[in-house]
Amino acid sequence: MRFCSACGQSVDHTIPAGDNRPRYCCAGCGTIHYQNPRMVLGTVPVWGEQVLLCRRAIEPRYGFWTLPAGFMENGESTHEGAHRETIEEAGAQIEMGDPFSILDVPHVDQVHMFFLAKVLNEQFDPGPESLEARLFSEADIPWDQIAFPTVTHTLRWFFEDRRAGQWRLHTQTLRYDRRPRA
Amino acid sequence: MRFCSACGQSVDHTIPAGDNRPRYCCAGCGTIHYQNPRMVLGTVPVWGEQVLLCRRAIEPRYGFWTLPAGFMENGESTHEGAHRETIEEAGAQIEMGDPFSILDVPHVDQVHMFFLAKVLNEQFDPGPESLEARLFSEADIPWDQIAFPTVTHTLRWFFEDRRAGQWRLHTQTLRYDRRPRA
Repeated sequence: MRFCSACGQSVDHTIPAGDNRPRYCCAGCGTIHYQNPRMVLGTVPVWGEQVLLCRRAIEPRYGFWTLPAGFMENGESTHEGAHRETIEEAGAQIEMGDPFSILDVPHVDQVHMFFLAKVLNEQFDPGPESLEARLFSEADIPWDQIAFPTVTHTLRWFFEDRRAGQWRLHTQTLRYDRRPRA
Repeated sequence: MRFCSACGQSVDHTIPAGDNRPRYCCAGCGTIHYQNPRMVLGTVPVWGEQVLLCRRAIEPRYGFWTLPAGFMENGESTHEGAHRETIEEAGAQIEMGDPFSILDVPHVDQVHMFFLAKVLNEQFDPGPESLEARLFSEADIPWDQIAFPTVTHTLRWFFEDRRAGQWRLHTQTLRYDRRPRA
């Protein structure tokens, strides 16, 4: 951020009075531009013994498999956002279930939240962000081609809980080492 | 938003190619400025039969009572943010527990999340955003002076679950009528 989105002047990166961390501040109009983490919402769409995955048609992770998920939009609930993303990415008809996983990803300023969902029929219509949408049994999940660690964790928890016959909310913080590799 | 924070030019509010809703777009440098909901994180700090509330020293709802809570910051987890807010607002020593409530508040583009927490001693040191921090038994909760509906819901669920002797995750979407009043 270099310019104030309210008045167009240059912003300073400085600690405002009464605050304890640097923000982008406009000396011209006084606006403080806070930056906060974003939520990514998705579902675990279940059809019998199978789970619906989408193959990404966009970067990052073009060609890799993911649960349908995307950034939460203003004006919607988490539940609605997860439902919307499942329609947009997989074109799947679903019945929404309970929250299943919440994963903090602080190094990219994101919180990922997945809901259980029941797939209502086998008619899928992948949107422009997906190359294909396909059902997978546990044995067929392409574990080495999953797009994001939050999806891998959520899928593993899903199959564990299903074997245990008990569903619970899973939470975890995923941290990555950002130091350059040797 | 009137100006591009990357280059300082005027932005247009228009639907970008491949998107399905209006965004603030810069015709000069091509940046699309997405706007997304923010998370508010807090705790239900428990000391024996009592719960710790803070009386707000800032607007909105100056003078009203709240559970310690505030906006999630970049670089932290939900768990860390809720812990930080409890220290900042109440100056309380706590041991963090499980997620307890998630409330969608789509008309203000927020998601509120409260964790259970165990208060470790009765030394409180309210920060500049709180007039005081005080323990309340259920019978003494000032229900008509609670700052936000998400706090009222969370407190009610807390006392219900305690009576039932069973803790679970509570989720709800709070919607308000934004039409002007007659």
